[in-house]
Amino acid sequence: MSKPLILVSNDDGILAPGIRALIEIVREIGEVVVVAPNKPQSGMGHAITLNSSLRCDEIQIDKGPQKEYECSGTPADCIKLGLSVILKRKPDLCISGINHGANSSINVIYSGTMSAALEGAIGGVPSIGFSLLDYSHDADFSTSKIVVKNIVNKILKEGLATGRCLNVNIPKLPFSEINGYKICRQADASWKEDFDVRKDPTGKTYYWLKGIFQNHDYGKDTDEWALANGYVSIVPVQYDITSYDFISELKSWNL
Amino acid sequence: MSKPLILVSNDDGILAPGIRALIEIVREIGEVVVVAPNKPQSGMGHAITLNSSLRCDEIQIDKGPQKEYECSGTPADCIKLGLSVILKRKPDLCISGINHGANSSINVIYSGTMSAALEGAIGGVPSIGFSLLDYSHDADFSTSKIVVKNIVNKILKEGLATGRCLNVNIPKLPFSEINGYKICRQADASWKEDFDVRKDPTGKTYYWLKGIFQNHDYGKDTDEWALANGYVSIVPVQYDITSYDFISELKSWNL
Repeated sequence: MSKPLILVSNDDGILAPGIRALIEIVREIGEVVVVAPNKPQSGMGHAITLNSSLRCDEIQIDKGPQKEYECSGTPADCIKLGLSVILKRKPDLCISGINHGANSSINVIYSGTMSAALEGAIGGVPSIGFSLLDYSHDADFSTSKIVVKNIVNKILKEGLATGRCLNVNIPKLPFSEINGYKICRQADASWKEDFDVRKDPTGKTYYWLKGIFQNHDYGKDTDEWALANGYVSIVPVQYDITSYDFISELKSWNL
Repeated sequence: MSKPLILVSNDDGILAPGIRALIEIVREIGEVVVVAPNKPQSGMGHAITLNSSLRCDEIQIDKGPQKEYECSGTPADCIKLGLSVILKRKPDLCISGINHGANSSINVIYSGTMSAALEGAIGGVPSIGFSLLDYSHDADFSTSKIVVKNIVNKILKEGLATGRCLNVNIPKLPFSEINGYKICRQADASWKEDFDVRKDPTGKTYYWLKGIFQNHDYGKDTDEWALANGYVSIVPVQYDITSYDFISELKSWNL
């Protein structure tokens, strides 16, 4: 049996420790092709490059057997290029990460990591985004490696319904302290926005985004609950964002 | 009764004819504050600016009573800045557009116009994104103006459930040929990606994204069906992208 073909991307850039850890694990499982941004692309959401051209050049970063390409575009661009230009056949799996920092609850909307996974799902490929709850550059990915291996092997065996992907978040804990895996919904949490208002050297105003994370969703079936209680959270995600339960009310408006 | 406060943004930039048409209509309805990108931001999805600072400067474009700010960031940045810095109180409505080109079906995921509306919904404000099925700079917005006025007045009267926004697409037709409004779901259509592969003057390869739109969703309850049949499509949209119908299957995996 031939090895599964795995397309890898992320949003922290091709040199980030998180994607290097991910590559190390999955190259033991399959044939790996990496198409990842050549610079950090955090918070890029589902941006794609429409008004300029893209570079996508082969690069060798370590001595592993994987092929790697660094791309000038967004995470979603990387997956589009991977699926339609770089790979000669449809991959068996598309994975993104391991992100340095959480992509739980509302963060899934802003996340470049998850947009790469969602783009894989749009392309009809079983896809997963992995994130570790540790923003630091020298985060410890040893727990993440075990989690990735378990989930990747499971998906390669079970498949994933078309148009779905998984949003996997991993607590910052040694594996021995992880309580297990929880299948969850996205918590209804949000950021209370705030901006630092500053003056540049010429006296003109500029702004820096900052914010406080607020979770008002006390459900025990959410990703935030799972993570706060030592579980790996797994949220199935889809690109159909229709609010179905609001359709009948809207129809009653008789516009 | 004081006038409703309306925050306006878009993704084609503050000088685009679409947003100018939108401002013309809504300033007859309420007190209008515009916070819009200072350059085109099409395809920016739900990108936000995390790694650099933002400019947001007042600007006067026409002789209207509205206040306007041009922002260096993405559409989602504009709404965040509008809600937390520029406006002194929570607006009654947040509207984005009128986009030059469709944001129906899968395009909602990539759309900067819709990310502005969704960001409004995340901020707890009733929000709408408007798009006209005409990409040209000199598109005729006369039908759109009537549609915008109808829907804005309706929402100001009825309100919108928290966390929801509307994705409104308008056919390129005279108003007399519009068959009405259809409340729909997002069609399961997609782009068959393709890239132009080109050589720069030094012989190095670069890529341009192109693609063919493919709709394999034959449902008559979709936005694509509505638009193809002369209706204005209205899809209620939410930021919870959990795939609820997949949760039980995932649980059966016993990870």
